[in-house]
Amino acid sequence: MDAVSPQPVPEPIDLNADLGEGFGRWRLTDDAGLLSVVTSANVACGFHAGDPATMRRVCALAAERGVRIGAQVSYRDLAGFGRRAMDVPPDELAAEVAYQIGALQVFARAAGSRVAYVKPHGALYNRTVHDEEQARAVVEGVLLCGEPLPLLGLPGSRLHAAAGAAGLPVVAEAFADRAYTPEGTLVPRREEGAVLTDLAAVVDRAVGLARNGTVTARDGRPVAVRARSLCLHGDTDGALELARRVRARLAEEGVRVEAFV
Amino acid sequence: MDAVSPQPVPEPIDLNADLGEGFGRWRLTDDAGLLSVVTSANVACGFHAGDPATMRRVCALAAERGVRIGAQVSYRDLAGFGRRAMDVPPDELAAEVAYQIGALQVFARAAGSRVAYVKPHGALYNRTVHDEEQARAVVEGVLLCGEPLPLLGLPGSRLHAAAGAAGLPVVAEAFADRAYTPEGTLVPRREEGAVLTDLAAVVDRAVGLARNGTVTARDGRPVAVRARSLCLHGDTDGALELARRVRARLAEEGVRVEAFV
Amino acid sequence: MDAVSPQPVPEPIDLNADLGEGFGRWRLTDDAGLLSVVTSANVACGFHAGDPATMRRVCALAAERGVRIGAQVSYRDLAGFGRRAMDVPPDELAAEVAYQIGALQVFARAAGSRVAYVKPHGALYNRTVHDEEQARAVVEGVLLCGEPLPLLGLPGSRLHAAAGAAGLPVVAEAFADRAYTPEGTLVPRREEGAVLTDLAAVVDRAVGLARNGTVTARDGRPVAVRARSLCLHGDTDGALELARRVRARLAEEGVRVEAFV
Amino acid sequence: MDAVSPQPVPEPIDLNADLGEGFGRWRLTDDAGLLSVVTSANVACGFHAGDPATMRRVCALAAERGVRIGAQVSYRDLAGFGRRAMDVPPDELAAEVAYQIGALQVFARAAGSRVAYVKPHGALYNRTVHDEEQARAVVEGVLLCGEPLPLLGLPGSRLHAAAGAAGLPVVAEAFADRAYTPEGTLVPRREEGAVLTDLAAVVDRAVGLARNGTVTARDGRPVAVRARSLCLHGDTDGALELARRVRARLAEEGVRVEAFV
Repeated sequence: MDAVSPQPVPEPIDLNADLGEGFGRWRLTDDAGLLSVVTSANVACGFHAGDPATMRRVCALAAERGVRIGAQVSYRDLAGFGRRAMDVPPDELAAEVAYQIGALQVFARAAGSRVAYVKPHGALYNRTVHDEEQARAVVEGVLLCGEPLPLLGLPGSRLHAAAGAAGLPVVAEAFADRAYTPEGTLVPRREEGAVLTDLAAVVDRAVGLARNGTVTARDGRPVAVRARSLCLHGDTDGALELARRVRARLAEEGVRVEAFV
Repeated sequence: MDAVSPQPVPEPIDLNADLGEGFGRWRLTDDAGLLSVVTSANVACGFHAGDPATMRRVCALAAERGVRIGAQVSYRDLAGFGRRAMDVPPDELAAEVAYQIGALQVFARAAGSRVAYVKPHGALYNRTVHDEEQARAVVEGVLLCGEPLPLLGLPGSRLHAAAGAAGLPVVAEAFADRAYTPEGTLVPRREEGAVLTDLAAVVDRAVGLARNGTVTARDGRPVAVRARSLCLHGDTDGALELARRVRARLAEEGVRVEAFV
Repeated sequence: MDAVSPQPVPEPIDLNADLGEGFGRWRLTDDAGLLSVVTSANVACGFHAGDPATMRRVCALAAERGVRIGAQVSYRDLAGFGRRAMDVPPDELAAEVAYQIGALQVFARAAGSRVAYVKPHGALYNRTVHDEEQARAVVEGVLLCGEPLPLLGLPGSRLHAAAGAAGLPVVAEAFADRAYTPEGTLVPRREEGAVLTDLAAVVDRAVGLARNGTVTARDGRPVAVRARSLCLHGDTDGALELARRVRARLAEEGVRVEAFV
Repeated sequence: MDAVSPQPVPEPIDLNADLGEGFGRWRLTDDAGLLSVVTSANVACGFHAGDPATMRRVCALAAERGVRIGAQVSYRDLAGFGRRAMDVPPDELAAEVAYQIGALQVFARAAGSRVAYVKPHGALYNRTVHDEEQARAVVEGVLLCGEPLPLLGLPGSRLHAAAGAAGLPVVAEAFADRAYTPEGTLVPRREEGAVLTDLAAVVDRAVGLARNGTVTARDGRPVAVRARSLCLHGDTDGALELARRVRARLAEEGVRVEAFV
């Protein structure tokens, strides 16, 4: 009698999105909608977006729905939405990171939850992929908070290296809507085709990343991209629709969607 | 031979001052100097003054010297140094207060200390003397932090009433350099003679307040003003000199200078 | 048979709207849409909204379409969108107003146009209805600019009184979507029914205001409200649709829509 | 009969300093003092320092004393005092530069003067020495203002190249308190000895630069450094004393101190 060889159960995957990215009168992200889909909420902390009342509201809703709360720390740059790389001296950057985490902690705790991880935003995210000094400053800022908070980011980044060296956990994320090189790194945004907009294709890539740990690179071949979390963009049109379809397809494919902490 | 009747030991008095009131390149308060004199440091939290690196530095020095750290919360008003009264909706104000306290907590804890109390700054201080809605919003912001932090302020203020109603401790402070009415309230700043500038007189009044709980009112008679803390202004010329003389005289007069928490 | 007595030609009416009220990544007003309808654009100048690149873009489009450019000056309050009344000392307020006008002038001139008028925004608008000191400070700010720019606002306001006293022109505006008292003043927003949301009713009131200088007051009777300009809100859902319908109806009714300068 | 060969009359030299670099409650530069010494005032325009009331006051005083007013434009960075290099997209940077110039123009004109030149501040100054894109963006910002304003800066900089290409005048400045390479360029600040602090030496170098167009380079040999203006730092201790001594020595040496426009 032959047994059907058992299908391996895929590892669970986390879905993270940037939330709370309004400021005062301005709204950007569909916080309530996305909090019904994602498992980790990168909450803006006031430096690129995110006023205190919004932070409070998003934390309350995230806690209510069991979504993990992460501090989405940024350069101080409301005018540029944190997308302007800045040469911030390391001691100032570390203190700015700690300040943002501390502010968010109040709202996370008031909601009965806690800040469970840290993820740099925008230009700080990109800069700390390659810039060792700033990567270490971000890690120093996290250490100031006195808890071993994991850093969510790109595998192979300076940020992850600095976090590891400091004894902080790291969590790798991948992007279903970004093109990858044959080496498994992101195609820079300035290059053509760097960002995919076809919804169905993005959903397929999300499934491939979550289920098999692979994605089709720019040369048409699969490349291994190991990630415990998929980043869903929250500030684009159709962000919620995409997130829902990704989540639904993952369920169909038997992938468990689950926070990493 | 009769026994000399024993002199009553005066209650201890706290000395508080606003510190860390620079921002980036700008410096204002002599933080290192005043931290060698006061027992409570009202640390600016970034809304009227106080960049993260300064907050960190002041907290470290305060902790090293055993000075208590308080959150000096303010309206969001760097351009006006928090001196512009603002009609901030209560839910926004509460969240802004909590945000500031949370940010400071990180630096206080990193220094091995903690945020031990809260004191509104400038226009928010003045507004919450009379404005019940804003007083309650400040208290709500403190409550969000999850610890029963005392509110340092004017006895009889709406702020103290709201704090009391919410079960938070209150600590009364007095001002040696401000004129008092015969009823024991502050003479408004806009009136002539509201602020005293004679150093020796201010020192004498500090001693009177600390030792006897009285001060000479504007009509020349003593009036009772009970205070557990004296506020020393940190942002004026000669602030440090005044603080030192007050502290020295209190020692001479046998008044113990001691934080209230 | 008698000749039909000739129908009097109604005075032309201006349509103004707040535009350019995004900031950096955030968008709020449908600038391109509304600039195809209104005759006067109240352009945000950076203190409550309006980054420089947006100001430039709105001015360019306004100039291209022959829409007048006005400086929509505000308290310095990005977090509160200029809706938090502030006790700004008059000399600071005057300088802040002048600063904003000057900044906008560059973009208006670069577009081949000019700043043609000034209108306070939000809390500053409301405050200068009654507060003489701040009204005079705004007028002083306008005077600093060296041109006799008209002030667009509420008839009977302190702002108009102060402008008149200083020799500046004033232009009265009315609101088709706001309830009026039998005395012809606005029903305060906090009262029920202060803001009308029924599209057809608002269009009718716009026509009545423009054609006859009257509006139905809260008591059901017509009241005279003379205005040279109607304010159309630009930051609400359906703002563009409402604006288009108002403009279309005014055309049908033979009312000329025309800027006041 | 031999005539004594006539001593060539040295070219006049301009003295410029950064002024108005306070913000709200904070003061930094001794504006009144330095305005009695320099011939050109680089007035901060609100992005790294410089609130509107200060801008107004400095312009009034400069005009009264016949000191030229220049727009000291900066990245938007109050927290970092404009010393954090930022990757601002060119169109945003151009608009930000124009915004600052326009705002200052109001105060310069109100004082009966005008903005006579533009000088980038801090990180923007340094960045536009080498960064062609940002240099062009600054020039585009100046062009938006509609007047051919000269750009004060380093000879050989990208900024001067871009200005020249756009038909704008350029004015070369030199630094008496900075070390120079044998090639006549500035020794980077991070290198030892890059900034001279010996007062007498700095005065001597100022005279050498103004009188002979030379300065002693780091290798001990004179190098030609042609400059129409000397930059005096306004935000250091002893700034005023140094400025006075430089001006006095220039007078003794027969060098005319005169603005370049």
